[in-house]
Amino acid sequence: MNIKIAYLGGGSKMWARVFMNDLALSTDLGGEIGLYDIDIEAAVRNQKIGERINLNPACKSKFNYVVYPQIEDCLKDADFIVISILPGTFKEMESDVHAPEKLGIWQSVGDTAGPGGVLRAMRTVPIYEYFANKIKECAPNAWVINFTNPMSICVQTLYDVFPEIKAFGCCHEVFHAQEFLCLCLKKLKGIKATRKDIYTDASGVNHFTWITEAKYKDQDLLSLVPEFAKLYYDKGYYEGGSRYQFKTDTFAYGNKVKMDLYSKYHTLAAAGDRHLAEFVSRTWYLKNKATVKRYAFGLTTVAYREKEQAAKIAESIEMANGTKPIVLEKSTEEAVDLMKAILGYKSVISNVNMPNLGQMPGIRKGAIVETNCIFTNDMVRPVIAKPLPSSVLALVSRASQNIDTCYEGIKNRDLQTIFNSFCNQALCDGIEREKLRELFIEMVNNTKEYLKDYYDLTTLTTII
Amino acid sequence: MNIKIAYLGGGSKMWARVFMNDLALSTDLGGEIGLYDIDIEAAVRNQKIGERINLNPACKSKFNYVVYPQIEDCLKDADFIVISILPGTFKEMESDVHAPEKLGIWQSVGDTAGPGGVLRAMRTVPIYEYFANKIKECAPNAWVINFTNPMSICVQTLYDVFPEIKAFGCCHEVFHAQEFLCLCLKKLKGIKATRKDIYTDASGVNHFTWITEAKYKDQDLLSLVPEFAKLYYDKGYYEGGSRYQFKTDTFAYGNKVKMDLYSKYHTLAAAGDRHLAEFVSRTWYLKNKATVKRYAFGLTTVAYREKEQAAKIAESIEMANGTKPIVLEKSTEEAVDLMKAILGYKSVISNVNMPNLGQMPGIRKGAIVETNCIFTNDMVRPVIAKPLPSSVLALVSRASQNIDTCYEGIKNRDLQTIFNSFCNQALCDGIEREKLRELFIEMVNNTKEYLKDYYDLTTLTTII
Amino acid sequence: MNIKIAYLGGGSKMWARVFMNDLALSTDLGGEIGLYDIDIEAAVRNQKIGERINLNPACKSKFNYVVYPQIEDCLKDADFIVISILPGTFKEMESDVHAPEKLGIWQSVGDTAGPGGVLRAMRTVPIYEYFANKIKECAPNAWVINFTNPMSICVQTLYDVFPEIKAFGCCHEVFHAQEFLCLCLKKLKGIKATRKDIYTDASGVNHFTWITEAKYKDQDLLSLVPEFAKLYYDKGYYEGGSRYQFKTDTFAYGNKVKMDLYSKYHTLAAAGDRHLAEFVSRTWYLKNKATVKRYAFGLTTVAYREKEQAAKIAESIEMANGTKPIVLEKSTEEAVDLMKAILGYKSVISNVNMPNLGQMPGIRKGAIVETNCIFTNDMVRPVIAKPLPSSVLALVSRASQNIDTCYEGIKNRDLQTIFNSFCNQALCDGIEREKLRELFIEMVNNTKEYLKDYYDLTTLTTII
Amino acid sequence: MNIKIAYLGGGSKMWARVFMNDLALSTDLGGEIGLYDIDIEAAVRNQKIGERINLNPACKSKFNYVVYPQIEDCLKDADFIVISILPGTFKEMESDVHAPEKLGIWQSVGDTAGPGGVLRAMRTVPIYEYFANKIKECAPNAWVINFTNPMSICVQTLYDVFPEIKAFGCCHEVFHAQEFLCLCLKKLKGIKATRKDIYTDASGVNHFTWITEAKYKDQDLLSLVPEFAKLYYDKGYYEGGSRYQFKTDTFAYGNKVKMDLYSKYHTLAAAGDRHLAEFVSRTWYLKNKATVKRYAFGLTTVAYREKEQAAKIAESIEMANGTKPIVLEKSTEEAVDLMKAILGYKSVISNVNMPNLGQMPGIRKGAIVETNCIFTNDMVRPVIAKPLPSSVLALVSRASQNIDTCYEGIKNRDLQTIFNSFCNQALCDGIEREKLRELFIEMVNNTKEYLKDYYDLTTLTTII
Repeated sequence: MNIKIAYLGGGSKMWARVFMNDLALSTDLGGEIGLYDIDIEAAVRNQKIGERINLNPACKSKFNYVVYPQIEDCLKDADFIVISILPGTFKEMESDVHAPEKLGIWQSVGDTAGPGGVLRAMRTVPIYEYFANKIKECAPNAWVINFTNPMSICVQTLYDVFPEIKAFGCCHEVFHAQEFLCLCLKKLKGIKATRKDIYTDASGVNHFTWITEAKYKDQDLLSLVPEFAKLYYDKGYYEGGSRYQFKTDTFAYGNKVKMDLYSKYHTLAAAGDRHLAEFVSRTWYLKNKATVKRYAFGLTTVAYREKEQAAKIAESIEMANGTKPIVLEKSTEEAVDLMKAILGYKSVISNVNMPNLGQMPGIRKGAIVETNCIFTNDMVRPVIAKPLPSSVLALVSRASQNIDTCYEGIKNRDLQTIFNSFCNQALCDGIEREKLRELFIEMVNNTKEYLKDYYDLTTLTTII
Repeated sequence: MNIKIAYLGGGSKMWARVFMNDLALSTDLGGEIGLYDIDIEAAVRNQKIGERINLNPACKSKFNYVVYPQIEDCLKDADFIVISILPGTFKEMESDVHAPEKLGIWQSVGDTAGPGGVLRAMRTVPIYEYFANKIKECAPNAWVINFTNPMSICVQTLYDVFPEIKAFGCCHEVFHAQEFLCLCLKKLKGIKATRKDIYTDASGVNHFTWITEAKYKDQDLLSLVPEFAKLYYDKGYYEGGSRYQFKTDTFAYGNKVKMDLYSKYHTLAAAGDRHLAEFVSRTWYLKNKATVKRYAFGLTTVAYREKEQAAKIAESIEMANGTKPIVLEKSTEEAVDLMKAILGYKSVISNVNMPNLGQMPGIRKGAIVETNCIFTNDMVRPVIAKPLPSSVLALVSRASQNIDTCYEGIKNRDLQTIFNSFCNQALCDGIEREKLRELFIEMVNNTKEYLKDYYDLTTLTTII
Repeated sequence: MNIKIAYLGGGSKMWARVFMNDLALSTDLGGEIGLYDIDIEAAVRNQKIGERINLNPACKSKFNYVVYPQIEDCLKDADFIVISILPGTFKEMESDVHAPEKLGIWQSVGDTAGPGGVLRAMRTVPIYEYFANKIKECAPNAWVINFTNPMSICVQTLYDVFPEIKAFGCCHEVFHAQEFLCLCLKKLKGIKATRKDIYTDASGVNHFTWITEAKYKDQDLLSLVPEFAKLYYDKGYYEGGSRYQFKTDTFAYGNKVKMDLYSKYHTLAAAGDRHLAEFVSRTWYLKNKATVKRYAFGLTTVAYREKEQAAKIAESIEMANGTKPIVLEKSTEEAVDLMKAILGYKSVISNVNMPNLGQMPGIRKGAIVETNCIFTNDMVRPVIAKPLPSSVLALVSRASQNIDTCYEGIKNRDLQTIFNSFCNQALCDGIEREKLRELFIEMVNNTKEYLKDYYDLTTLTTII
Repeated sequence: MNIKIAYLGGGSKMWARVFMNDLALSTDLGGEIGLYDIDIEAAVRNQKIGERINLNPACKSKFNYVVYPQIEDCLKDADFIVISILPGTFKEMESDVHAPEKLGIWQSVGDTAGPGGVLRAMRTVPIYEYFANKIKECAPNAWVINFTNPMSICVQTLYDVFPEIKAFGCCHEVFHAQEFLCLCLKKLKGIKATRKDIYTDASGVNHFTWITEAKYKDQDLLSLVPEFAKLYYDKGYYEGGSRYQFKTDTFAYGNKVKMDLYSKYHTLAAAGDRHLAEFVSRTWYLKNKATVKRYAFGLTTVAYREKEQAAKIAESIEMANGTKPIVLEKSTEEAVDLMKAILGYKSVISNVNMPNLGQMPGIRKGAIVETNCIFTNDMVRPVIAKPLPSSVLALVSRASQNIDTCYEGIKNRDLQTIFNSFCNQALCDGIEREKLRELFIEMVNNTKEYLKDYYDLTTLTTII
């Protein structure tokens, strides 16, 4: 099948490589991958990698890789548009993640909720407003797949600017919780199953979804969690490797947050522990470094990210040059499967971020929610989720309403409303508002290079 | 997998045989099929047929067939309960279908909408109240599959009496519309696809569902309908055989109703034409026999049904005796596939009747609607349908609200409210209320054997 | 208090005179009444009458009457905008009301529901689109009071074009039902009360509202209706005069429709019988002239309206000239009371037509519904109505959804969709679609002078 | 008019006296006031006071005061039931209010939100379950007026146990905000108006309602707040007396919380500052005693309440004995006005607590919300409120969902869920969960006399 995929961004990220890899391993596809990046060099690098992939004997689907200097040309005639950008640079992210630490606000990720999420949203939404308008103009019928964080607010921007857009946001975090459940099944019942064999009813906002029901055949999986916790809570258990891995691998974690939340709420929080910790009161899992360690996960530093990215870019350059061979191997990501389902190959049910048409009871219609959807012939349709228990809904609603307030503030370029959302973040619980005010002002100033064109920063100090 | 299926009714119907056949051809299943029928002889006949099926070399899944004189015993420990009953006898159905003809109300089916549907509901709901209470008492966790008509009101009764019930109603009528779309695809685009290869977004009430979007890959199927109609409307076209078949086969039809409705509403009505005709104004397709013929379908008489049933019973007796061999062959029904999906074999998306949790915009929450649902490991979850265009919603709402009124009237044993629903049937359009009153009284009296225990018929003539 | 009221239309109607009269009798008001009418002569006539009113010794509030040739000037700085127009002329209304008679469709009013209502809407909506845009441009903060029929669709147009508009539609029909209830109270309990002393919970669409609860202190008024009907149903009873008045006065009626509907639905239909009859099946009350007479109301002919209007205009000329004295006397209309409530004089609760924000359960949000609202200091807020019983909701929903379909068709200038709404009118029940098609085409052609600028009439005969 | 009012509780509270006073001053009423109190002595005292009131020359409506030892007798034939109880004693309240102080949780009231509100709810809900069942049994048609706190959860219990109940909860806190607005109007515009002359659109949960729009005629009152704050924020301003009054009068406050919240949210929080402070992050206004003082309000101690109550009881005894004369003077409370409106005297619009039928957008249907309602002949109907801005909705939702969680926990006698709600209180922001756990256990133990019959306290230490 001959298709055009427009890829916006992705130059300096792994996503594009993983995606090109998965496409290459998929059968029956072909056509063009348009590359657009404000860092054109990065786009060219991806192009070269793509061309090398085409030469790989394992490559089943070959694409023509084209770098477009103009976004309009990239979008034109696209069947799919993939967006994966870094809003600003690591310098801004440094501020997002680490500036709040002085107030005792430790962020394990810092790109979705908490102070970091708000500031990142302030930089990202105006770019997404631009994207939405360009898509409306150049490729209104294309399917748009978003990978950028903060996920919910990116997707919200797309739909708010261009309500007819066919967009959804993909995130693999729920997969981890599904793998955790498979682990429980194996450990306690001796049954081997993959996450595709089970069904989980997940709902929430991105990075803070919850599983209300999970079944493997008629085996209730959630009821296994307390038993599993009895065996493994103390030590922690990481489905992706050793339980000590979190000490050296910033993305690893021991699932203690998840198990602890389960014991409190009798519902399974369905994302990596690093993300979950950012949506509940700062004092629970992120009080200080000792607490973080006790809960068996780590704080991802921006320094680490920089180092990691430099290595990836170096690797990409080698791949582009041909000095490093490219090994094609199916990733665990699902984006290409979803695209193929949309192309009519095989229906897939997966969790994605879309506007709430009623699939998530208790959250306002129109809010961006993450639930299961059916992906099938040119359609994506939400599946209605079971209602969350009220104590969980209280937590998720807070996250969702913070997003609403934050988005409204950004849309109206209204710093006071953005700051109201900033203060209401669970990660800011218990910090005095005056201190939060200073922090907010500092963080805005730190990143003003990417904000000044959109916000009237002369009013910054009038916030209260 | 070892399961128990309780089958209520089905003695005198094809359904049980088709179902036993499909179960036998399914791999990996086994256990018990409990048979309960007020006609115990019929249950015993099915038991014998079941035992013969077990001996058939093509039989892959063997079941132990047990006849239960007591419903409680049949239901106990059931994993699935299948209900398929005939409320009353053909004598009552004769009245349902044919009594209204004297007023020019011709019914092609007479078991769902129109005067016949209302009277049938009056007999059926009290039985379903009994079933719901028994299920609540004996097998509250079983999955309940309903095949009885009037479908919507049967499922509504189950949920109203026992809100935690896990019930859904299965109907194959949408399949026909899907096959019709495959036909359009083949005729106009030369592409062969089965109904499993396409995706249709269907929603409505049973026997009056509508397809708002249909795709085969990115091919829009609905847009083919007008072109198809240009070629075939005049002659009619029956996806199940010859276009003249309706003249001899009471279940055949030329899809002219469907094509005509499409030209008016730009949406595809998704049931057999015989059913669709009963939900719109009497004057459109059912004005008189000539009109029916012009629209290339037939009126199914009860005399025909009696004859057909007698033949089926004779055949069943032969099968039970072993004088007629049983040929196992996969049917086009999906009930067994849905059961297997629930058992965790493979997720299936199909249209079924369930309470509206928001899957059907524009219809009240809680009403029984037919939309796609996901069937998977011990769960059935509704998929949100696209909103119907307002002109179609007006027709479907009327049908849905007639069901609401009818159910409320029956539940409260309130003949006036039932009669209000009777008068508001589209099939009664344009008939004077006084004549409808006489008809209703007559029809109630005709079937009083099955009503007198539930309704105070001494008040019958006070309705107005 | 110094205010500006812009009056659009009203030149040839009684409304303006009644309104000027009530304003004059109100204390504490003053300012300007701007008059804009496409019939400028009529506006000038009203101006002169206004000036004469100012001279009347009973006049308590004097206004400066100004005729504006340009709508923009009239609207500018207005605090209130009153709209009361006749879309087209009596020639068009002649077609609306009487053309359908040849098919046995008798309309007692013909300006809201039924074929006449649809055609009138086709002429009116484009004018209201113009008004809404002008109001948005010239007086976005003004309160807009609509009197024109078809009421619901006029108000819907205003809100659809300019969602921030502060508009409502006033209708006195519910008052009659309230007076009817006072009558029951007097006749059966000997208690004298005015409609202001009782509270009625009314909801529905304009001219088809229903009272679900009515109380005078703790006296349930609805429960009196059956007793009243026992005494007066046969003879009829008219709260406005003699029970025979309907024979000579086309606006009089014997409340037999109301009482009959009550006996069927146990809920009180709350409009004049002439209106109610147009929302239920044609065969009930409007089957033919004999039926109409039996139900003790009349068919208002357009010939009568022409004659009546000519007399009113003649009278107006005399009043303008001063040859006929103007007697100031408080009318039973409420518009001025509502204006005063909005101006902060005294809160008033009254039924008006506004978008459904949830005040009418069972009807879609956004539809124009008639329920009680609070009128108070610069605000109008809907009061939540009791849900209608399902059998009544079925009737009202049909009316509401016909309006939705009709409006959507007109908005999109889509004749097929308009015709779908035309066919679904209760007054068309039982008439063959082909005949309705001919009628619709004829009625469009009859009134094409007022339609051709808005609709592509070359496609008229393609409707089906 | 002859009515029976059943008064449950009220023995040791001012409410009963105020209420008897207002009834006496109302014209046209009479009948019986039934008194039921678990402290029968207090009921007898009220009876005697009532009898003395009857002798007062200013008394316009005389009632027969009857003490009932059995609740059933008290409720029988009641037209109105008034409930005003103290759940537990001051000893329990002492724990509610002051036990949390050791963690830095300072509560200005401690009976609605925060730790104190949760514990008080635990004692109150079981009593209200009993009341609801008794009302259902003995006086299902009576109007029930609740004064007890925590208001929302009391009313929720009544409706959850007996959904057909006609109950509402009265609170005067919004009145203060209305008076504050009148003050702004007087100070800034020189216009004297009472709170009855203005209209405020208020919505929220009890003690945390917000005014989204307020008008005196067309004068926008909210827009005056910033101007007023410019003049008075620094000093504070108390509409009930001197701005220093809060130093000596524990119920006085300087409106600084209200003005501060307005500057942040551009919406007026509509309760006394003492209440408002308990619904936002602990650090804002209740961080410590210095903060409280800076915001010009006080912490009401239970010692103060005890002293105050002893004085009131002493006074009551004197009044009952006749040693202290009773001065009848209309209070500022509205309960009697609302009763008279229900009795059909005059419609009143006022804010009360009722289940959300849609009157409060953004909050789930069924939650108890406080908005305006119309009180009229035997009916109370909610008025739809303007939606709250998203940043305010975020705060109010949190409060509402905490109530949901708390109620669900209490209803199910599930200590873990109650504790989840406890932890999610804004007043607990930033306190470690382990410390909250200890506090919760302590507070439960402190008050176990009133809890042990309802909860399985042996499981208390299993909460997490």
